[in-house]
Amino acid sequence: MIHFSFFEIVNILGTLSFAISGTSAAMRKELDIFGIVIIAFVTAIGGGTLRDILIGRLPVAWLQDNVAMTVIILGTITTIAFGTWVTKLNYTLFIFDALGLGFCTIIGIQKGMELQFSPGICIALGAMTGCFGGVIRDTLLNEIPLIFRKEIYASACIAGGLAYYGLLYFQVENNLAQVICIVFIVLLRIVVVKYQWSLPSVYFKKES
Amino acid sequence: MIHFSFFEIVNILGTLSFAISGTSAAMRKELDIFGIVIIAFVTAIGGGTLRDILIGRLPVAWLQDNVAMTVIILGTITTIAFGTWVTKLNYTLFIFDALGLGFCTIIGIQKGMELQFSPGICIALGAMTGCFGGVIRDTLLNEIPLIFRKEIYASACIAGGLAYYGLLYFQVENNLAQVICIVFIVLLRIVVVKYQWSLPSVYFKKES
Amino acid sequence: MIHFSFFEIVNILGTLSFAISGTSAAMRKELDIFGIVIIAFVTAIGGGTLRDILIGRLPVAWLQDNVAMTVIILGTITTIAFGTWVTKLNYTLFIFDALGLGFCTIIGIQKGMELQFSPGICIALGAMTGCFGGVIRDTLLNEIPLIFRKEIYASACIAGGLAYYGLLYFQVENNLAQVICIVFIVLLRIVVVKYQWSLPSVYFKKES
Repeated sequence: MIHFSFFEIVNILGTLSFAISGTSAAMRKELDIFGIVIIAFVTAIGGGTLRDILIGRLPVAWLQDNVAMTVIILGTITTIAFGTWVTKLNYTLFIFDALGLGFCTIIGIQKGMELQFSPGICIALGAMTGCFGGVIRDTLLNEIPLIFRKEIYASACIAGGLAYYGLLYFQVENNLAQVICIVFIVLLRIVVVKYQWSLPSVYFKKES
Repeated sequence: MIHFSFFEIVNILGTLSFAISGTSAAMRKELDIFGIVIIAFVTAIGGGTLRDILIGRLPVAWLQDNVAMTVIILGTITTIAFGTWVTKLNYTLFIFDALGLGFCTIIGIQKGMELQFSPGICIALGAMTGCFGGVIRDTLLNEIPLIFRKEIYASACIAGGLAYYGLLYFQVENNLAQVICIVFIVLLRIVVVKYQWSLPSVYFKKES
Repeated sequence: MIHFSFFEIVNILGTLSFAISGTSAAMRKELDIFGIVIIAFVTAIGGGTLRDILIGRLPVAWLQDNVAMTVIILGTITTIAFGTWVTKLNYTLFIFDALGLGFCTIIGIQKGMELQFSPGICIALGAMTGCFGGVIRDTLLNEIPLIFRKEIYASACIAGGLAYYGLLYFQVENNLAQVICIVFIVLLRIVVVKYQWSLPSVYFKKES
């Protein structure tokens, strides 16, 4: 039997979540089957690929085994099978995007810590890993990327990262701290969207 | 005299084809001379650059000698010289895009095989090498990328890659199998566009 | 006390200039505070990151120390502080974009020379380092990238690069040649925009 570490499980869940969110987004736009697979794939591996390139861990991980590809294809097929009669693709897209954000932020932070980067850089890497897949997804589908709408999005990753370092500082066990951080990011995204929180403006008056 | 291997000749032909397709696309949009050169360059080296980054073959190949740059500049100048009185830029764009797709898919698969990736990953690398230059070209020119129109495009690369592995399996000589695969992809693209083939839809009914 | 080399000072000034130009561009679009920081960051590190990836200098430089991040954050805060009562954000954007172009082109050429690439490749690397941050900035803000407007933009980097090699050929001291090249690019951009110079067209007649 194949044994997965805690880190690998989080990684697989992150990949799966973003594959589902990508599939939902592509189905909303009524892309054909191949377009859906491309968007699911790019959303799922985008953030990790950018991170691996920037830190020089090449060839990128998903080229070296078939785990990511298998997870993405299974996630896409399942979502298509259910998605054709699920009316609330919008909701599926949102909730799995939030989950992917939580899982992938932690993965990015861990990768940065392995290379002993400073906490600020690790959190930036986490935010990039979390956000970049969604940015590509939205750009390819010609939507305004979630990251640029007036919502707390990348800031949720950063807040989660700070919370994680805070927990480590108070001697919370590493895996537990990661789980708390993931839950924190997902809940924060849900609360933000539900109550339409946004960041303060830097402008004295708005004209547009 | 400089001697080129079969692999290098395919690579040069792929670069040249995409340079011509990029130049045609840029001229259709009436970009100035420098805009044309940038689009030709990006179209020609885009796919290979993405592939080399993902597999970690850095610095990317076109930085290390002047072959690619020379080919691109010659292709661009020739296309501009002819293009100003050729009215069917659309057709030039399409046919050289199909040729580039064929050549570059094979190059990508070969690079993956050198690194002993699994066939699935090699075909994905081939499809990326083939498609990515055109995706950047279309994005920069603010067109809907060919890859997302309801046509068989990336799927043509994948079909070609599968055909190539099939031929190898039946002991067809490697260079011959490559040539057949290239011809297959180019013809498939022509037939697809001529008869407007598309992939089956995953939706029960279309609303938009 | 920390001591910076000439090269590092040019690098910091380039980063700072592009951070200011990115902040100005994002404020013009009335992004929230986090959107502004992302755009400033991406504009400031975009060109150098693309260059470092292409030449394989990974992890990219800004991950390995906090200099770039500190410079960007200071530049962004200052620009926001002044920007809220400065009405001419357009002008700030333009002038700091021109400065960034000058500084970063030289940085890119130097990096290429370190790796002993040919002059043509070094100038191409310089132009990419100079232009790419602005291209991402404009793309993310949904503007037509400056590089594709009918102005001399990337060509200014190339002209500056040629001037630099010309000066080296005539035995001008390296740092002096770099300063002249930076001033040349900045002035060229100002003159080009002021007098609306553009490159010659390759078309016999314009229809659009």
